[in-house]
Amino acid sequence: MPTRLDRIRALCARQEAGAALITSLPDVRWACGFTGSNGVLIVRPGAAHLITDGRYRVQAEREVRDAAVHAPGYDLLGYAAEAGLFEAGEKVLLQAEHVTLAGQARLRALFPDVAWHPVEQLLVRLVAEKAPEEVACIRRAQRLTEAVFSELLDLLRPGMTEREVAAEIVYRHLRHGAERMAFEPIVAAGPNGALPHARPTHRKIETGDLVVLDFGGVVDGYASDLTRTVAVGEPGEEARRVYDVVRAAQRQALAAARAGIIARELDAAARDVIAAAGYAEYFPHSLGHGIGLQTHEWPAVSFRSEEALPAGAAVTIEPGIYLPGRFGVRIEDIVVLHDGGCENLTTAPKELIVL
Amino acid sequence: MPTRLDRIRALCARQEAGAALITSLPDVRWACGFTGSNGVLIVRPGAAHLITDGRYRVQAEREVRDAAVHAPGYDLLGYAAEAGLFEAGEKVLLQAEHVTLAGQARLRALFPDVAWHPVEQLLVRLVAEKAPEEVACIRRAQRLTEAVFSELLDLLRPGMTEREVAAEIVYRHLRHGAERMAFEPIVAAGPNGALPHARPTHRKIETGDLVVLDFGGVVDGYASDLTRTVAVGEPGEEARRVYDVVRAAQRQALAAARAGIIARELDAAARDVIAAAGYAEYFPHSLGHGIGLQTHEWPAVSFRSEEALPAGAAVTIEPGIYLPGRFGVRIEDIVVLHDGGCENLTTAPKELIVL
Repeated sequence: MPTRLDRIRALCARQEAGAALITSLPDVRWACGFTGSNGVLIVRPGAAHLITDGRYRVQAEREVRDAAVHAPGYDLLGYAAEAGLFEAGEKVLLQAEHVTLAGQARLRALFPDVAWHPVEQLLVRLVAEKAPEEVACIRRAQRLTEAVFSELLDLLRPGMTEREVAAEIVYRHLRHGAERMAFEPIVAAGPNGALPHARPTHRKIETGDLVVLDFGGVVDGYASDLTRTVAVGEPGEEARRVYDVVRAAQRQALAAARAGIIARELDAAARDVIAAAGYAEYFPHSLGHGIGLQTHEWPAVSFRSEEALPAGAAVTIEPGIYLPGRFGVRIEDIVVLHDGGCENLTTAPKELIVL
Repeated sequence: MPTRLDRIRALCARQEAGAALITSLPDVRWACGFTGSNGVLIVRPGAAHLITDGRYRVQAEREVRDAAVHAPGYDLLGYAAEAGLFEAGEKVLLQAEHVTLAGQARLRALFPDVAWHPVEQLLVRLVAEKAPEEVACIRRAQRLTEAVFSELLDLLRPGMTEREVAAEIVYRHLRHGAERMAFEPIVAAGPNGALPHARPTHRKIETGDLVVLDFGGVVDGYASDLTRTVAVGEPGEEARRVYDVVRAAQRQALAAARAGIIARELDAAARDVIAAAGYAEYFPHSLGHGIGLQTHEWPAVSFRSEEALPAGAAVTIEPGIYLPGRFGVRIEDIVVLHDGGCENLTTAPKELIVL
């Protein structure tokens, strides 16, 4: 079984490069286990070097797998130059999305003889394919988030503001052991629910509101992401109809989700149900996104993407309908793609809950 | 009084550039008022264009000052190309820290005839000089954070874990109206306090612990940042002595802080007090950092910096002493630099509090 570093080495060999410089922190963590907030990883045949600053020496020595740990002062790349960690004339792969123009200027000044070779999406396929222990982490995070959702059902009532609900969501994640939130919670009641990315406001929940709740936390570095839409009081006939359409669309997508499906086709499985019900123009976003050490990672489950979704990828399935000025409905699970189907990591109920 | 956009235009003129492309979201917000999570700003003589995606159309039209609002689909730069927002042959300034190599490749492909010109620290001096209304925002954020600190004094007791305290800090910020946290709170008790950037653990506070509390929230986009070190039970003689040294060092730095001082010299005002007391090697970080729409922004108040600190900059003053395996002490205020002195935006008490 090749290590993660070995898989990066294989990428280097395929591109005839002497080394790769990994500068995205979640990718550094994926590759060698380092969880600090400052570090870069150099991978080459027969060696690997994690460079961080002195604050993280003890932590890095405890965490890092398969790489030498260096913990100089704050100038990590200056240290790499002094220590001769790159060789004159060699080609080195860079993560094109994770090196800025200022960073490139510094690399060129420090290493005038290295041939830097930026590659887009260098590691995304490796990172997307989740190992069983990674799936277990996402599942634990999702369980924690579901426990918070369950508590919310006892709390939500007319008169609470969206911000108050969001504060409870954050507090309960931290109390239950989340390291932090995966993203700022969305709590969008009544007409605010029609904004897919609404930020919580001081609006009070009113009787009859649909409330879109979209939140997730981080456990052992891995993110959860759950959306449920609940009614606080009877929401009325159209809200119920729209809810049923979104639920049917999500069911259809869950049935279609499997390794190898084209992203656009999986998106269409849900989108076709929504379109057939007459709401095509009210589902303006993609069906989902990859998730893992980052809340949003490759692959996008998008109507614009012709890429095949790989086995082992954890992706969200989150169709929605948003009726401007009125209300919104979104339902979101996380699944892991396998040959012939998917495993749903989410267990929270999906029938319409009326509180 | 030139607008913020006019000041960017003056930068363009000085560099003989036809336009600037602003890609850092906090800088976009500073320049034109847009607060969404996706957007770029083009500034040229006589015109400015904020481009965001359709989700933010209504919000952008409400928020944006002095610039035309465009809200096409998700491909903002593709839209800029179709709409002809750059001219063939013109030189356009880029923010070198806020364009990736992947972003540059896309710009080159979309606009083959534009001469892209990356500039490091393009806007940092403009953004550092806070307008009175910006200082008022930081002060409001700091007041909110101080109110949370005051509540904590009633809560902290032996047996609470660091994580439990951190959850209370976050919850109370959100309940008091913070939009979000400015950074993850640091709650570091006893020996954990000796790690300047400790993450909260499941360690229980013990009687006699010093507890380092470092946290801040965001109000109207602006960050607060406050550190106080309190004792839960009598901490003992050396802890009291170290506390007094840090407090004296901070007092010395506050007395020295003024517009025009070299960053290294301001840092030295505190560092010299700590060194004279015999703790030089136990103050491993810089004295402070700029703060505003970002928690950490230019200028650094660092022993490595020879830059003069400009009038109007809001900076933190946060000396500390960290004794490995034993305890740490840090005290942090935010000040605004003026000619001949500074204004302290922080009012929380600094005598050692023993709970």
